[in-house]
Amino acid sequence: MDTLTNLLTHRTIRNYKSDPIPETVLDKILEAGFRASTTGNMQVYSVIVSRDEEKRKALCKLHFGQKMVEQAPVLLTFCADFNRFNKWCLQREAEPGYDNFLSFFTAAIDALLVAQNAAVAAEDFGLGICYLGTTTYQADKLVDFFNLPQGVVPVTTLVVGYPDEDPEQADRLPASGLVHQETYRDYSGKDIDDIYREKESLPQTARLIEENQLDNLAQIFAYKRYTRKDNVHFSKVFLDVIRDQGFMNQE
Amino acid sequence: MDTLTNLLTHRTIRNYKSDPIPETVLDKILEAGFRASTTGNMQVYSVIVSRDEEKRKALCKLHFGQKMVEQAPVLLTFCADFNRFNKWCLQREAEPGYDNFLSFFTAAIDALLVAQNAAVAAEDFGLGICYLGTTTYQADKLVDFFNLPQGVVPVTTLVVGYPDEDPEQADRLPASGLVHQETYRDYSGKDIDDIYREKESLPQTARLIEENQLDNLAQIFAYKRYTRKDNVHFSKVFLDVIRDQGFMNQE
Repeated sequence: MDTLTNLLTHRTIRNYKSDPIPETVLDKILEAGFRASTTGNMQVYSVIVSRDEEKRKALCKLHFGQKMVEQAPVLLTFCADFNRFNKWCLQREAEPGYDNFLSFFTAAIDALLVAQNAAVAAEDFGLGICYLGTTTYQADKLVDFFNLPQGVVPVTTLVVGYPDEDPEQADRLPASGLVHQETYRDYSGKDIDDIYREKESLPQTARLIEENQLDNLAQIFAYKRYTRKDNVHFSKVFLDVIRDQGFMNQE
Repeated sequence: MDTLTNLLTHRTIRNYKSDPIPETVLDKILEAGFRASTTGNMQVYSVIVSRDEEKRKALCKLHFGQKMVEQAPVLLTFCADFNRFNKWCLQREAEPGYDNFLSFFTAAIDALLVAQNAAVAAEDFGLGICYLGTTTYQADKLVDFFNLPQGVVPVTTLVVGYPDEDPEQADRLPASGLVHQETYRDYSGKDIDDIYREKESLPQTARLIEENQLDNLAQIFAYKRYTRKDNVHFSKVFLDVIRDQGFMNQE
């Protein structure tokens, strides 16, 4: 498919057929992923492919029981990975200095660009995708599950499979609310009203407010979907994983 | 262009013509960016467009004098941005709980997926791109330069413009060295040799070793390109920015 059409028609898919993805197709998706830009051409990432049904059932539980995780035939877990690079350095008598936060973030950027290329490539093959935000929440459990060594941290997961639904595209905020020319122009009260007006007036927003018995959509985000309590808890989990996997040395 | 061909033929461009990018083209590139998946459809990112020549000259200095930064007509700085979302919450009497590390990382993922979609879209228009890793190194200075408020952290930058060179594609490690089936299979000494063999035997690797008067390519990375000293220093800079911009509240 034409690139722009592909990008502009993206929809997240949450219901999948169980049809397997041919090996050659998955290889091509990953090859396209690995063509993404990478810091200094270091390629400090790894991808773990989960196809096994029992493994996907276990992963479904780890990812808060989101049904699509066991429904779809393939899960791709993208990891920031300095382990391979460190081992290479040590084997060549070069002392690696990649046990710090900058190196973690560099590797996370690398991994996320690969993930997005893979997502775009998958959609080109008629596959659907969904990102799992639960990857960072459950990073500690995923480290155990995949047996990740020092230097490896999971940063995101893609569910990949043939769509069993045909959803509308999600709404997006107006581009003018997301783009700044030359310098950051901070938002006035009126700007905020303008930017969120369309989202707030959608029929599904009215339904959500009714269902949740709250005053508005912002309250649904702050008090139901992404609460301070959860965010604080999972911040600690994720920072602990980053440190435990060896990325918080400050010397 | 066909999506797969586009993804598989990516090359980083480091020399640009000064030809401007039409407004309509840039708008389409950003629109494609904003179609990327985003956590809970929150779109917690912003993009700053730099076209002004004086501004690009100043940014060139900030980005360690990389010539292409002032040569190319457009620079896109992608920021993790909870400022807009927080303001919306406060204006709707919802108390936001997004001043923590998880929220920063969520917003960084969002911003990076947008960046990669924009990169792919730009290449579809015949434009070249280059990511600037210096964005995190100089995050403190970029916060000042763009006048970024609390809740906003720059995470990556794309140089965008018409290519003034026609480089070969960069080498990549064999996919088998980057992919793990079901579980992480740690690397043996032989695995490492196999994975890096082709990269180490490239003619440009021999040239680099000669130029740098070192024993091998791994030493060039560890002792010249990405040194422990620099990584430790820039880790502190970036973590300080994340905290100063309001993302390290632990309660």
